[in-house]
Amino acid sequence: MAVASSTYTVTFQPGDILCEGVAHGANLLRVALLEGVHINASCGGTGACGKCRVAIEGNYEGGKSAKLPQPDYDAGLRLACRVRVMGDLTVTVPEESRMGDSAALTHERRPGPGRVLTPQDLEKLVTGWKVDPVVRKYPVQLEAPDAANNIDDLSRLKLGLKSQHGLEAVSVDFNVIQEMPETLRQEDWRVTATVVETARGPKVIQLAAGDQAGEDYSIVLDIGTTSVYAQLLDLTSGETVAQASEYNGQISFGEDVISRIVYSQREGGRKELQEAVVGTIAQVVEQVLEKAGIDRCQVSHMVAAGNTTMTHLLLDVNPKYIRIAPYVPAATFLPPVRASSLGIDICDHVHMYAFPCVSSYVGGDIVSGIIGSGVFQTDKVTLYVDIGTNGEAVVGNSEWLVATSCSAGPAFEGGGIKHGMRATRGAIEAVQVEPATGEPHILTIGGKKPIGICGSGIIDAVAELLEAGLLGQNGKFKEAAAGEWLRKNEESRWEYVLASGEYTAGGQDIVITEPDIDNLMRAKGAIFAGIATLLASVGMDLDSVEQVYVAGGFGKYLQLDRAAAIGLFPEMDPDRFTFVGNGSLLGARLVSFSKDMLAEAERVARMMTNIELSDNQAFMDEYMAALFFPHTEMKYFPRMEQILSKIQ
Amino acid sequence: MAVASSTYTVTFQPGDILCEGVAHGANLLRVALLEGVHINASCGGTGACGKCRVAIEGNYEGGKSAKLPQPDYDAGLRLACRVRVMGDLTVTVPEESRMGDSAALTHERRPGPGRVLTPQDLEKLVTGWKVDPVVRKYPVQLEAPDAANNIDDLSRLKLGLKSQHGLEAVSVDFNVIQEMPETLRQEDWRVTATVVETARGPKVIQLAAGDQAGEDYSIVLDIGTTSVYAQLLDLTSGETVAQASEYNGQISFGEDVISRIVYSQREGGRKELQEAVVGTIAQVVEQVLEKAGIDRCQVSHMVAAGNTTMTHLLLDVNPKYIRIAPYVPAATFLPPVRASSLGIDICDHVHMYAFPCVSSYVGGDIVSGIIGSGVFQTDKVTLYVDIGTNGEAVVGNSEWLVATSCSAGPAFEGGGIKHGMRATRGAIEAVQVEPATGEPHILTIGGKKPIGICGSGIIDAVAELLEAGLLGQNGKFKEAAAGEWLRKNEESRWEYVLASGEYTAGGQDIVITEPDIDNLMRAKGAIFAGIATLLASVGMDLDSVEQVYVAGGFGKYLQLDRAAAIGLFPEMDPDRFTFVGNGSLLGARLVSFSKDMLAEAERVARMMTNIELSDNQAFMDEYMAALFFPHTEMKYFPRMEQILSKIQ
Repeated sequence: MAVASSTYTVTFQPGDILCEGVAHGANLLRVALLEGVHINASCGGTGACGKCRVAIEGNYEGGKSAKLPQPDYDAGLRLACRVRVMGDLTVTVPEESRMGDSAALTHERRPGPGRVLTPQDLEKLVTGWKVDPVVRKYPVQLEAPDAANNIDDLSRLKLGLKSQHGLEAVSVDFNVIQEMPETLRQEDWRVTATVVETARGPKVIQLAAGDQAGEDYSIVLDIGTTSVYAQLLDLTSGETVAQASEYNGQISFGEDVISRIVYSQREGGRKELQEAVVGTIAQVVEQVLEKAGIDRCQVSHMVAAGNTTMTHLLLDVNPKYIRIAPYVPAATFLPPVRASSLGIDICDHVHMYAFPCVSSYVGGDIVSGIIGSGVFQTDKVTLYVDIGTNGEAVVGNSEWLVATSCSAGPAFEGGGIKHGMRATRGAIEAVQVEPATGEPHILTIGGKKPIGICGSGIIDAVAELLEAGLLGQNGKFKEAAAGEWLRKNEESRWEYVLASGEYTAGGQDIVITEPDIDNLMRAKGAIFAGIATLLASVGMDLDSVEQVYVAGGFGKYLQLDRAAAIGLFPEMDPDRFTFVGNGSLLGARLVSFSKDMLAEAERVARMMTNIELSDNQAFMDEYMAALFFPHTEMKYFPRMEQILSKIQ
Repeated sequence: MAVASSTYTVTFQPGDILCEGVAHGANLLRVALLEGVHINASCGGTGACGKCRVAIEGNYEGGKSAKLPQPDYDAGLRLACRVRVMGDLTVTVPEESRMGDSAALTHERRPGPGRVLTPQDLEKLVTGWKVDPVVRKYPVQLEAPDAANNIDDLSRLKLGLKSQHGLEAVSVDFNVIQEMPETLRQEDWRVTATVVETARGPKVIQLAAGDQAGEDYSIVLDIGTTSVYAQLLDLTSGETVAQASEYNGQISFGEDVISRIVYSQREGGRKELQEAVVGTIAQVVEQVLEKAGIDRCQVSHMVAAGNTTMTHLLLDVNPKYIRIAPYVPAATFLPPVRASSLGIDICDHVHMYAFPCVSSYVGGDIVSGIIGSGVFQTDKVTLYVDIGTNGEAVVGNSEWLVATSCSAGPAFEGGGIKHGMRATRGAIEAVQVEPATGEPHILTIGGKKPIGICGSGIIDAVAELLEAGLLGQNGKFKEAAAGEWLRKNEESRWEYVLASGEYTAGGQDIVITEPDIDNLMRAKGAIFAGIATLLASVGMDLDSVEQVYVAGGFGKYLQLDRAAAIGLFPEMDPDRFTFVGNGSLLGARLVSFSKDMLAEAERVARMMTNIELSDNQAFMDEYMAALFFPHTEMKYFPRMEQILSKIQ
């Protein structure tokens, strides 16, 4: 992955709040907000509101804005949202930039954000493997035939692979045999065989003249319902050479797996969906090859991890019964398929390995995440959660694993929210609400004018509104708190203004409504209930969980205390939480690099027990109990209980 | 094969010569000639010469001709060439219809013709097998999924095949998985799986709704350089349903394998050849399906036996180095290939099994013949000979086998002979020469006007000319014997008139020339020398051979004593000779019916040792010694030695 760059320490004053590990070039307002240091900000970080004034000592760049008068600038003030951290800094936040009238910064009331791992750390999650891919290139120098030894070319090749590489009972793909005589003689019987290790022995899938053993690459894919991520791996060095991502081209046929399955049942629909995702794959494959300057003929295999529906659609397998009770996929283990037969523009011998799935709603992406995060190796009871439109949860360790999936709805991805949007530039991703005034301070992704609010922004906003006393635990606004930001709209419905139209990209107020909050409550309720039911199914509860891995792009912006405040997760020691990012891609990498890991992935998929939540009364009970902020049962939320008791 | 019909006994007088096992409807002149009973005949059996007059008692049809005057007819005479045997007969051959002036018929001087087996007998050559093909259909009734058991469809199918048929570790072809969900539910979870037994376990290659287990067929092919034979087999009953044959469409690109290999190296040539033979296969497949009224979807596999070059060209594998020393084929063992990928119009799951080959010139047709004739099961030292453009010989038994191939040239197929032709209608297939006058008596295939002479006709003619004293052992005509039939042509070269222009289809004389005889000598010399060298390579000689199997359509018309007379085979007890006909097709049938036989075919191909004759001095010496009729060393030809000594 990216090369590690130096990191800095930023100290906020007053209060001596130390922020360590700040990346070179980081946005200072973002550093403050993600650390929980409150600095006023209404415009999302574009410099338009001019509220985030700070004084800085140390090495930085930027900080100017038309909204910062020259006298203030001359006095040493800068706009935090326009500052890039270039070294260790000491940042003094003046009283007018602080929330409310507290003398100190408010950092102390927030727990840490949980571990967000660097690429290097991520690779250390799994141990005991080496680069030894399932597809390898073997150079062979054969003896030329003569009258005393005129066995057929195929037998000669097999004998060479046996004597020079110890490969026993090799089979050779028919397509290789057809042109083999000329290939063998082209460089005087020196050839390179691309050999795949199958469950049934080694198989030569390509033969090239000369020694080409050093030029061996793979492409791994995370096929998400929304996005497709690709990495080009160097199978010789074990390094990542390039990466790319694009929105899954299937989006235009439906946002979620259910609508895709429905579409697939139309005349020609399945083929359209298959071609759409292959089109996206073509783009990311093109991008990684171009970035790395690698010829596509040097790619010898591909690995794809996706949920069960994505896997079916990629391989053009009928997904119809995934969505019809009792929710039966066509197959959970699919054989490797020639990538070219799927329509991917790659050499004919390249096979696509689709991660095995567990059930209709616990897919290859989860199996891949369990591999990539090392859950399959740990002794600790681990909760692995992947939050998206579907929330999947896995509990277990190296010896046992149970998994489930619950439909959270699209709230965490900004769906079903009046001003919701995906976590892209211009999305409000972090929110603070000033308890005294109810004023929001916001930060957008990319420091752009606010366009809408993404999943983590909604969570932040609801958590802040709860703690600021503007929102009740039942998800209804407190009319008593009405004011500049909490107001009734034209239809006499309550809404909270996150960003005023004067700062937004569209020129209109960005608001949160009660239906938005209700959607969020149902989403977090489903996930919490799913986790609780899953644990109960193995006679455990949240206290049994020793560590939590959170996967998904979502986790990148998620603040643990905010997630606990709304009841998505219980309050736990942040050190027990790890954000693994794209766990699915992590596992796909490992499987691509190591045939042992491929075997582990199959073992994990077989070992994982699926707990079905539909028509599950225990889940329904848990779900009803979770439709409250943070929960009707406050056992796992002592901090929130204390905060809320003060508000009452 | 064909249903056995009743057979009759024909008794020739004078001499009480009994011919048993004569088929219903057989041509009486043919019965006589093939039995060695001489009856005059100059026109080939068309009724045109009117010489073959006989008196008949018993049940028959025909016998009239414009050449038979009414008084003769009224006196009870018939033309043997126009008579069809319909019951037991007693046939009196009057003196004027006999050769020369001998009082008796000349049958006694000829040994029996060797065993020509009926289809029923042929099937008994191999024992200990049952109908249990490598591809089988298994009906399965699965339980419908419910919430308590919602495993994926694929796992459900595998469990069903395991519990209901004991199939372990089943894999399922990806193409089957894609549409499996609907197929399974179409007839309420009752399906029929087509399963192929691979070296690596059972694999489902097709899935159909409902119970279709009884409808299971295969097509077996003998891919000859000249002709393609097909049979449609019923894999449930073990019966042959239909058969068909066509000339191999590759003929227009060259008559023999060498010219085909040369052509294959042209731009696009290999593809042209592949498409040509596939075109022929399409014809014979169409014919057998139509004859039997079987839908092509009920065919579940195909088996093809061919020589090494034919196998390469059928599968579009580069054959280039087969013809270049040291004669290396691309592969001798080729994996089963989807027949549709070869361009054959058949269901996608149907695989083509090509018989394994041994070397560049000992191919799958020979391996198939060894299987089909049961040589691989016998304790007796057996010589298996397949005579065509290439003569292949195998010696061995159930424990060891050595094989070789020698280029005989096309003489046995009528090639390189002035009036030579293939063994089709109008070809002179049997010849007798009257010693006293040198007059030829001939029989054509189909009783048609003579067009030319085929391989067995040449052998007959040369043998008769030798025994009648018209031809020397050195292959030169004896000028002293010149007369009406042995004459000099316009170029002052000697030739023998087999059929006068007044009787031939073309209106011109059909003759045998010294170059024709020379070609035949070289052809028989190569085969005899090949056999001798092969035997010597394992420290044996002809005396060691306990039985001889002769394969090839050629054998159908070959008279053993004639073959021995020219020195193609040694003189041996005719009971030790068996003509197995198309041995290659026989073996392909067995392999199609029985997976045990498929395993045996692979064992045989691995076990067979190839003896290379090119650059082999022992072979060259044997060959030079064999360039004489019957041979320079008369040890194996005592009968001929005696006959020739009388002539000298």
